[in-house]
Amino acid sequence: MLTIAEVQELVQKKVDGFCRKNGSGAIYKPVNYILSLGGKRLRPALSILSAQVFSDDIEDAIYPAIAVEVFHNFTLMHDDIMDQAPLRRGKATVHEKWNTSVAILSGDAMMIQSYQLLHKTNPERFHEVYDIFNQTALEVCEGQQMDMDFETRNDVELAEYIEMIRLKTSVLLAGAMKIGAVIGGADKVNADRLYRIGEYSGLAFQLLDDYLDVFGDQAKVGKQIAGDIISDKKTFLLIKALERAKDTDAEVLKYWIGKRPKDPTEKVRAVKAIFEKLEVDVALKEKVMEYHDRALGELDAIPVEKERKQALYDFAETLIGRQH
Amino acid sequence: MLTIAEVQELVQKKVDGFCRKNGSGAIYKPVNYILSLGGKRLRPALSILSAQVFSDDIEDAIYPAIAVEVFHNFTLMHDDIMDQAPLRRGKATVHEKWNTSVAILSGDAMMIQSYQLLHKTNPERFHEVYDIFNQTALEVCEGQQMDMDFETRNDVELAEYIEMIRLKTSVLLAGAMKIGAVIGGADKVNADRLYRIGEYSGLAFQLLDDYLDVFGDQAKVGKQIAGDIISDKKTFLLIKALERAKDTDAEVLKYWIGKRPKDPTEKVRAVKAIFEKLEVDVALKEKVMEYHDRALGELDAIPVEKERKQALYDFAETLIGRQH
Repeated sequence: MLTIAEVQELVQKKVDGFCRKNGSGAIYKPVNYILSLGGKRLRPALSILSAQVFSDDIEDAIYPAIAVEVFHNFTLMHDDIMDQAPLRRGKATVHEKWNTSVAILSGDAMMIQSYQLLHKTNPERFHEVYDIFNQTALEVCEGQQMDMDFETRNDVELAEYIEMIRLKTSVLLAGAMKIGAVIGGADKVNADRLYRIGEYSGLAFQLLDDYLDVFGDQAKVGKQIAGDIISDKKTFLLIKALERAKDTDAEVLKYWIGKRPKDPTEKVRAVKAIFEKLEVDVALKEKVMEYHDRALGELDAIPVEKERKQALYDFAETLIGRQH
Repeated sequence: MLTIAEVQELVQKKVDGFCRKNGSGAIYKPVNYILSLGGKRLRPALSILSAQVFSDDIEDAIYPAIAVEVFHNFTLMHDDIMDQAPLRRGKATVHEKWNTSVAILSGDAMMIQSYQLLHKTNPERFHEVYDIFNQTALEVCEGQQMDMDFETRNDVELAEYIEMIRLKTSVLLAGAMKIGAVIGGADKVNADRLYRIGEYSGLAFQLLDDYLDVFGDQAKVGKQIAGDIISDKKTFLLIKALERAKDTDAEVLKYWIGKRPKDPTEKVRAVKAIFEKLEVDVALKEKVMEYHDRALGELDAIPVEKERKQALYDFAETLIGRQH
């Protein structure tokens, strides 16, 4: 049985091979650049580990997993344009390093390449894999659309926010895991369990990302610190704080939302203090544990030897360990 | 046997059906908008007619053909951002009517939708169709990259220009026709003939587009008049004119290239006059006839009753008829 670390290493090797084959043509340089920025390769690793739950032969699961990683990085390249993000994993984003046209076009090429990679698998399973991939890909776009819509709204409710991050972040992890399961030979019931494990884990993961944006260590996060507060992003923390805030707290929040001071230090300090006072960070962590438990429940229910699932249990623990 | 007009009508119906199913969600409105701007639906029509060369049953060729049309319109949506084009078929481009983010994201969704449509065909032929589609799609991006590279270069040679329009315009028509042929049951030799017919026709088509941009009737063209002259686009006409120009003509061209006067009338008049004097319009039409003849040669060589190929012969004549 492969461990998470072993699969991550395998994925990294395949990603490196993909980049080498891309060469250095103008359209592929930004593709190789964004893929070189690192990241934990969790989606492909979990896709392959999902195949391993059902089969010892994970060969056919490798390239569809890389397809998911390439697709994911394509969405990052385009989202960074739309969000006007200057940094990605501590380095300049593609549209900053080159320009918007380059980021659009290389992103487009990258999406097509992800479809090419997807095809390198068992042709019989391909049709099902393809349908999952397409539906997932479209939902990711719908999630990004919701995210942009929220920017101009001041009445985003928690349930809508959860649905947005489910589409924007979770379904790709869920789809990746279901694709792995299908290639591994899972039946429908168990393939859907893997889907839900990915869905719940993705929600937990994104909520922790919201937390780390505000309370994390910048060196580790690799993004503008408290960027969500600076840009008034309606994350779990802000929505929950607006729900809970009364009197002075509500006034302070209202005062800062919409303000973009040149030096954001005071804004970040004030909003963060209210988040802590109203314990929305605690509420967030409770929600994370709820999703964590649901994911574990689904994993428990899959009728294979525990050994086959061990790497996924380990992953669940690692995910929860990201809180610091 | 279906005629071009009948197939175009069939395609239009399917495109309309696709748009209806899309509904009016924020992400799909721009998709439906760009598809509503019309166009001759030549790529899908020729894809289906290519199937008809080999089979009476064209049912399986329909959705892959629509996939090509949706993909084509996705490239228009993204190219218009990169080219900062205000108009498309006489109407506001998507990034003008909405904004750049919307045009990026709806374009992305559209590409995914084209992959969904592609899957609605004979599953056995799908694998070959899929490989053609992916390679073609990537080449279209490479063509757009070349086109953008040319903007900052003053030494583009005719052969490079032809290669650029081959990638940017011809391969999609070629791929569409080969996909149709494969679905119709063509063997490799004849599927490749259909590919080359598309390739040569696409080259002829794009050269005529260059011609019409400068010498066409604006009402028919639906774009900014002589936009290529205004923006110093290195088309066949300009490259050939720079090749042929001597003394005063060369100086006049040199004077205008790079200048962007507020009122472009004088620039357009002067450059157009040189094009006519140097007969680069005549050279262009000769080149168009050369590609036309090559396409006809390939069509002649396909060993089926002439009746099966009649619609493609008719198309070739129509294409040449665009010169006015």
